[in-house]
Amino acid sequence: MWAGDDAAVVRGPETLLITTDMLVEDVDFRLPSCRGEDIGWKALAVNVSDIAAMGGRPLHAVTALGLGPRTPRELVDGVLAGLMLAAEEWDVSLVGGDISSAPALTLSIAVTGAPSASGPVLRSGARPGDLLGVTGALGGAGAGLWLSEHPQPGLPDGTRERLLARQFRPRARVPAGQALAAAGAGAMIDISDGLLMDLERVLDASGCGCEVEETTIPVDDSALELGRHEPEAPDPLRLALTGGEDFELLFAIAEEGWKVASSALETQGTAGTIIGRVTEEGRLIGGRALEEREERGWDHLRDR
Amino acid sequence: MWAGDDAAVVRGPETLLITTDMLVEDVDFRLPSCRGEDIGWKALAVNVSDIAAMGGRPLHAVTALGLGPRTPRELVDGVLAGLMLAAEEWDVSLVGGDISSAPALTLSIAVTGAPSASGPVLRSGARPGDLLGVTGALGGAGAGLWLSEHPQPGLPDGTRERLLARQFRPRARVPAGQALAAAGAGAMIDISDGLLMDLERVLDASGCGCEVEETTIPVDDSALELGRHEPEAPDPLRLALTGGEDFELLFAIAEEGWKVASSALETQGTAGTIIGRVTEEGRLIGGRALEEREERGWDHLRDR
Repeated sequence: MWAGDDAAVVRGPETLLITTDMLVEDVDFRLPSCRGEDIGWKALAVNVSDIAAMGGRPLHAVTALGLGPRTPRELVDGVLAGLMLAAEEWDVSLVGGDISSAPALTLSIAVTGAPSASGPVLRSGARPGDLLGVTGALGGAGAGLWLSEHPQPGLPDGTRERLLARQFRPRARVPAGQALAAAGAGAMIDISDGLLMDLERVLDASGCGCEVEETTIPVDDSALELGRHEPEAPDPLRLALTGGEDFELLFAIAEEGWKVASSALETQGTAGTIIGRVTEEGRLIGGRALEEREERGWDHLRDR
Repeated sequence: MWAGDDAAVVRGPETLLITTDMLVEDVDFRLPSCRGEDIGWKALAVNVSDIAAMGGRPLHAVTALGLGPRTPRELVDGVLAGLMLAAEEWDVSLVGGDISSAPALTLSIAVTGAPSASGPVLRSGARPGDLLGVTGALGGAGAGLWLSEHPQPGLPDGTRERLLARQFRPRARVPAGQALAAAGAGAMIDISDGLLMDLERVLDASGCGCEVEETTIPVDDSALELGRHEPEAPDPLRLALTGGEDFELLFAIAEEGWKVASSALETQGTAGTIIGRVTEEGRLIGGRALEEREERGWDHLRDR
């Protein structure tokens, strides 16, 4: 029943991608430290990111909005403004919605999309020998979350703004996903719950193992700067591995495909880094077994 | 930004309908008096009902599930079972979803659909002279809700079960919507927030008035029986006008179209009742102006 991919692939007269994600007050964001515009932006961005992870192009969105008893009208206006900004950014048509009462502000969005000409990229297509890579850098969103709860007056403004933007204004990697799909990426996922957990999902779906070099994982520069500035801040590498919400893409691609994809990413100005390789079996991250790591990321069902 | 119809009509290589609706604990249902299976069923049914109101056929659904801190795993299993039952009933493919934490159990579903060959039926196509009609009977869902909170030991089992089913196991009028679309219905809406409020939406979108005879409104037999049994129960006609959640269809159709539609509905075994007529202006329900009625139904934004 759950398709197991970032977005559903449905057959019809044309192939259509559909995905849904829900953001909930006090789970995914906290008021009043979070602005309505950021909430609306992020709610759409995380859905668009799922389409990007299939190598697709987003088309339409429908939005269900649950308003808490103390959700002020101005905040709702901000949320709608943020939704519209993000829709403009990724050329998504906001085509409908539902407004309901709820115990807390809740946004649930469904987005449709069209796959690239080469078809949707699933989680299950990684093959032994494929390179494993990520777009951009990781750990910034987690550092931004920590920073929002622990203001650091001495931190340079640019660093602060970059980290807060990573948390509150995430960017969906649509052109990068399309380039990777066109270059023949075998498997792809967006890093929403942390690199370790999302990597595990790809490997589970593909029935493969991996060898990942911890030292090659691209850690966000601003997260590193925060770490140097404030010893109490969480370890940047740990944020990169388990923090989640970076919404970068993790992909598996054959070596010849990577040559094509890496130059396409370079043209886009998007970083792409190879962090390891898909293997037949065994899952090693920096020499340690993946399954031995206690905290792998977020799983809403695990403790139930 | 909000399309203003029960489901969004989007242009693409083919016309696709998309809709979304959210159900929230303590707003749309109460635990533990409500079973998980009923919650899952209803969450899908209300979305399918939106597709039915466009005259369409449902195709796919994605589900965002927010789990409260005290939502037991067994309840989640029941919700999923109810979703699957309803999906089978209306031939909907459950193609994906998202699970999140939330302050209370929250289900947000988006459903796609295909319009009938004659195109989607909007709210805006009612024209002066059209007949106004409804499928089925109204007020049963509201009576069922009251009954669930005020058990009536003396009420015959059949009546009790019918009313509780109207509230907890609503039926989307898919074949009726398709028949009405094929017969050329100009406007259609599902009665989710109460006849008066949903009628007002059609009239606002169409820029028309109406004359409705209160005595012709089909009131649910079991709601009438509950009213006779228990003087404290809400007035059945008032439930029919403002109770909401009956998920019957309200439609505007030219007289010649109604001849075709009424025999198609009869073949389906679905009641269809003409309750009045669309006019140029003025909105009269039983001789009283619609806008003078204080309680017209549910509006989640009104008191904000």
